[in-house]
Amino acid sequence: MNSQRHRTALLHGAGYTGGELIRLLLAHPAVRLHAVTSRSCAGEPLWRAHPRLRGQTDLVFSDPDAFDAAEADSIFIAAEHGQSARLAAALLADGFDGILIDLSADFRLDRAGLYETWYDFEHPAPDLLSSFAYGLPELCAPYPPGTRRIANPGCFATGVTLALWPAARHMDRMDAFVTAWTGASGSGARPKATTHFPTREGNARAYKALCHQHLPEIQQMLGPGATIRFVPVSGPWSRGIWGVADIPLPAGVAAADVDAWYAEAYADCPLVRRYPGALPELRFAAHSPFCDIGWMVRDGRLLVGFAEDNLIKGASGQAIQNLNLLIGLPEATGLLPRPQAS
Amino acid sequence: MNSQRHRTALLHGAGYTGGELIRLLLAHPAVRLHAVTSRSCAGEPLWRAHPRLRGQTDLVFSDPDAFDAAEADSIFIAAEHGQSARLAAALLADGFDGILIDLSADFRLDRAGLYETWYDFEHPAPDLLSSFAYGLPELCAPYPPGTRRIANPGCFATGVTLALWPAARHMDRMDAFVTAWTGASGSGARPKATTHFPTREGNARAYKALCHQHLPEIQQMLGPGATIRFVPVSGPWSRGIWGVADIPLPAGVAAADVDAWYAEAYADCPLVRRYPGALPELRFAAHSPFCDIGWMVRDGRLLVGFAEDNLIKGASGQAIQNLNLLIGLPEATGLLPRPQAS
Amino acid sequence: MNSQRHRTALLHGAGYTGGELIRLLLAHPAVRLHAVTSRSCAGEPLWRAHPRLRGQTDLVFSDPDAFDAAEADSIFIAAEHGQSARLAAALLADGFDGILIDLSADFRLDRAGLYETWYDFEHPAPDLLSSFAYGLPELCAPYPPGTRRIANPGCFATGVTLALWPAARHMDRMDAFVTAWTGASGSGARPKATTHFPTREGNARAYKALCHQHLPEIQQMLGPGATIRFVPVSGPWSRGIWGVADIPLPAGVAAADVDAWYAEAYADCPLVRRYPGALPELRFAAHSPFCDIGWMVRDGRLLVGFAEDNLIKGASGQAIQNLNLLIGLPEATGLLPRPQAS
Amino acid sequence: MNSQRHRTALLHGAGYTGGELIRLLLAHPAVRLHAVTSRSCAGEPLWRAHPRLRGQTDLVFSDPDAFDAAEADSIFIAAEHGQSARLAAALLADGFDGILIDLSADFRLDRAGLYETWYDFEHPAPDLLSSFAYGLPELCAPYPPGTRRIANPGCFATGVTLALWPAARHMDRMDAFVTAWTGASGSGARPKATTHFPTREGNARAYKALCHQHLPEIQQMLGPGATIRFVPVSGPWSRGIWGVADIPLPAGVAAADVDAWYAEAYADCPLVRRYPGALPELRFAAHSPFCDIGWMVRDGRLLVGFAEDNLIKGASGQAIQNLNLLIGLPEATGLLPRPQAS
Repeated sequence: MNSQRHRTALLHGAGYTGGELIRLLLAHPAVRLHAVTSRSCAGEPLWRAHPRLRGQTDLVFSDPDAFDAAEADSIFIAAEHGQSARLAAALLADGFDGILIDLSADFRLDRAGLYETWYDFEHPAPDLLSSFAYGLPELCAPYPPGTRRIANPGCFATGVTLALWPAARHMDRMDAFVTAWTGASGSGARPKATTHFPTREGNARAYKALCHQHLPEIQQMLGPGATIRFVPVSGPWSRGIWGVADIPLPAGVAAADVDAWYAEAYADCPLVRRYPGALPELRFAAHSPFCDIGWMVRDGRLLVGFAEDNLIKGASGQAIQNLNLLIGLPEATGLLPRPQAS
Repeated sequence: MNSQRHRTALLHGAGYTGGELIRLLLAHPAVRLHAVTSRSCAGEPLWRAHPRLRGQTDLVFSDPDAFDAAEADSIFIAAEHGQSARLAAALLADGFDGILIDLSADFRLDRAGLYETWYDFEHPAPDLLSSFAYGLPELCAPYPPGTRRIANPGCFATGVTLALWPAARHMDRMDAFVTAWTGASGSGARPKATTHFPTREGNARAYKALCHQHLPEIQQMLGPGATIRFVPVSGPWSRGIWGVADIPLPAGVAAADVDAWYAEAYADCPLVRRYPGALPELRFAAHSPFCDIGWMVRDGRLLVGFAEDNLIKGASGQAIQNLNLLIGLPEATGLLPRPQAS
Repeated sequence: MNSQRHRTALLHGAGYTGGELIRLLLAHPAVRLHAVTSRSCAGEPLWRAHPRLRGQTDLVFSDPDAFDAAEADSIFIAAEHGQSARLAAALLADGFDGILIDLSADFRLDRAGLYETWYDFEHPAPDLLSSFAYGLPELCAPYPPGTRRIANPGCFATGVTLALWPAARHMDRMDAFVTAWTGASGSGARPKATTHFPTREGNARAYKALCHQHLPEIQQMLGPGATIRFVPVSGPWSRGIWGVADIPLPAGVAAADVDAWYAEAYADCPLVRRYPGALPELRFAAHSPFCDIGWMVRDGRLLVGFAEDNLIKGASGQAIQNLNLLIGLPEATGLLPRPQAS
Repeated sequence: MNSQRHRTALLHGAGYTGGELIRLLLAHPAVRLHAVTSRSCAGEPLWRAHPRLRGQTDLVFSDPDAFDAAEADSIFIAAEHGQSARLAAALLADGFDGILIDLSADFRLDRAGLYETWYDFEHPAPDLLSSFAYGLPELCAPYPPGTRRIANPGCFATGVTLALWPAARHMDRMDAFVTAWTGASGSGARPKATTHFPTREGNARAYKALCHQHLPEIQQMLGPGATIRFVPVSGPWSRGIWGVADIPLPAGVAAADVDAWYAEAYADCPLVRRYPGALPELRFAAHSPFCDIGWMVRDGRLLVGFAEDNLIKGASGQAIQNLNLLIGLPEATGLLPRPQAS
């Protein structure tokens, strides 16, 4: 390869996260997307699955079986849970030693047994688990030198963890009740009863209350002192997650302390916007690369809210943020406008 | 049977039109719904398929195979196209001679061959076609004495025909361009790609442009002098149809003439509301039993708009209106509040 | 008056709650709506403010100054907060001694001083406060004999109180975190920045977090042992409230105990539907007269959810329920279909 | 000025088109936005009016009275109709001779008298009208050498004109019925009765039927042989315009001819996507810089549909396209991803 630009490929790029990743990569100033695979769309132009991209790229979906990993400096995998681990294992077995960023849940948890409990499958490549770093950049970066494999966090996990972590690390024990709403794109591109328009419009529906599969990755990040009760809710929109948490504070913690916790935690984080004394609105974060976090302290308790786009900060944008970090670029490259020199 | 109330049954009542028909029948002052069948829901309370009805009725879906038509004074069929004709034929072969109101397309067209062209099936009971009256009450009632079988019109056909007919009957040849938008409940209760929330929200999508299967029933009502170009569009809402038509007027026709045509056509029709000089809004007709019609004349052309709820005036409400007419009740019984005596 | 039907009037009937009250009263089998006042719409047909009612009633808005209370057996007031108390005081000063049901907040709180704190006005008729009964029928009815004045509860207060009360009365101290979402009709018929379509669509926005004005009426019902932290949220729909609460249970309380609490509390309540072990969906309650309540117990905590239509069970439907109770009718008369005799 | 980048300013940048223009300019690789004025927001960061921009720029709204045009190579004006002409006249009177792109209607029509008829104001600077080029790039570019002033087309006018023009120029007389739907952002950022959420959701409402103020600019482009009947409709979404037109074709025109007309008209237009034989969907054009155009020919008539984002191709994106053309850049610069070299 003699190209100067970093070359990247996307496996299983016909779904919603794939489409968003392609859109963002096409606009990235330092990365070149050279291949996107899809078994069902092989041979079709990308816009067949992602009509918004028509006129923006001439790329054609390639057959997964014909994919040559040696051409790629980095690979994103946007396959379904369970399938990603197999794909990754095959790539590595074939000698791929570039950057691998997996957007599924398959490498997020540190113990293989958790997959049986939470995802109902036996992990096909438990040996690989420890070779992936959990990729929530604001809390996990800088990654250890040599890190080449990232498990990109879940959409709910991203928001909940970012919202709670600044408090959790100052409390021996944290007890949080969290409820968070997600848009219909979170359920994927395949029609389901829960995303049928007459069912979803004007509706609110809790699901997997207190047992959502993102809980173990949140727990992993917040540590054993944290107890999280989480109620996910389906909301009547397409893009974005909005949540709020109620947390008792230890005696003696003042509002100014909490303000300092959050200010310090995200001081140098271009993709977290802070709203002290307020709860953020969803619409400012939807279609953006940010996670917005706001909080207020009252009567010894912390109320903290968050908002993000589930497909961007909750998936594809964060994957690019991780790629940027691994290849030494500013983390928001391709996600935020470049500073304009005067 | 010694009940004083008219007893009615609904076959295949687990879909959207079934649900709306049950809701309306439960509130009907002179009709008693005594059975609703569904193969997939047999033995379940009605609210399992129609959760809004919980707490409003103790009825349980019955098995279609156990249904006894002899118990019913009238029967509604809300089966899919193609299936209804088989059901009706079986009922009649078994000797049912009560009122039969079919909400499918199976008895709307007067020639069996049209079903092959427009619905892609061979009609299973062509002999029965002539025994059904087309049931657009404002234009077809009073039905001939002895009428016991009604083919309830299609949702688009109801609005388009009611909007155009008062003009069509005054014109030897009428040439109309019609575009009409429908909500997602028009596609039924089963999830589809076109009713997937992220696809439908904020979207407009034309489909079956110039070849929608309701054209032949519209044509049948308006007569051979009418040429209709019809573009149906999927809109981002659940309930209601809204359309507009552009029609050249014969020389010498004035706005006052057109006003008189519409005033005369619907003078005694409690379920058509007229808006001379304006186009109606969808939201006033949605969730109502009305078809709203408005029009304006400019530069020798007629612009006519219409709005209706696809499940009520476009299906279940109209079916009840037909039942009322056949059993000698005021046509809006159970659909509009009764006049309040002073 | 020699009419046999109960005669009722509605003051300030041009808003959303007024429109819904008219719709319900027109369908009520035992009550006759004979007058609706509105200063801005006087002389206009009701459908000018409520276009959905066109074709359903010939009533015309009357001038508030010409309203004759002596004609009415009962009066509903749907005026704004602060204005209702003046209207009620004037009616009573003029000798009206029929039933008075106020849908504003003006008679809900038992101490006049609370209005300065929570509603920012000095109560104009503090002497009247004790003559009104708080009208949450499931908890407050049967009303004391002779009760003729009802303060109809707030929309959020209805759902939150009904959801928490069965637990609160079994706990000396209850600590609840509640978040509840409301549709845009809750903000009234006048356009505002928060109900501007591009702002509201696809958005989630918390407001008055921990300081909503319905808190004191909730507190009044639940008693001094209850601590309620309440976060209201604006949701992207028009009709309905959906909420969820997180509550620690006293040691030793089992799921079966909680089931029994709710079963007992609402055993004879036709307008509360119970969902043990689940959280209800909004869409089944929207456009219905019900408050739906569901709950689950896990790890010593109670999670309870509720759903209601803010304009029906949260306002106009509940007002009719109250009228029914005061005049000796079954409470759901005009709200649910009558039981159908076999 | 010694900056290498082109410097641009935006006057009256607090509305929806202003917000979108800022977003696009911040991402433009060759243009630097150095000032945005707003009387009501002067001194505030841009994100106060456009919260989505928080974290993306440090720019602060400047006071219009303190604006120094000499700093700018180009100026965009996003003021209201009537106000723009005064602003432009003042800038020119002060000697500004850079590029001026006005997004209002004030310089679109070639005769001052039309403003009294269609916009109800007397044009304050009729002498300037002829100095502005109408800026529909696909039809009007390349602009005459030396062109420095552009009247950016209206949102409906952009779509309708682009959809009809390839046919119109091949027909001596064209008679078209057009109906087009627009989202609520088209009405601006100020709340109105027609953008009140409970009114807009699930609704369809025609307005200014046959008399919309974009008709004269469409007519100006299509020429006196074209007769356009145009029915605009308010749709229940925030972003995008979707329309369809019905046009009789001259005798002897075949589908292949029409295909060739459209192919030829937009062969080199990167921001028009063509869909021969189909009508485009709205959602692929919403949030994009494209105008999508699709058509079909049947029975001697042309059915042509179009879709665009009203704020991008219908306003701000097109304004940037015009700037690109005037300063010698590829027209899609900053609007589409740059071609990625292999």
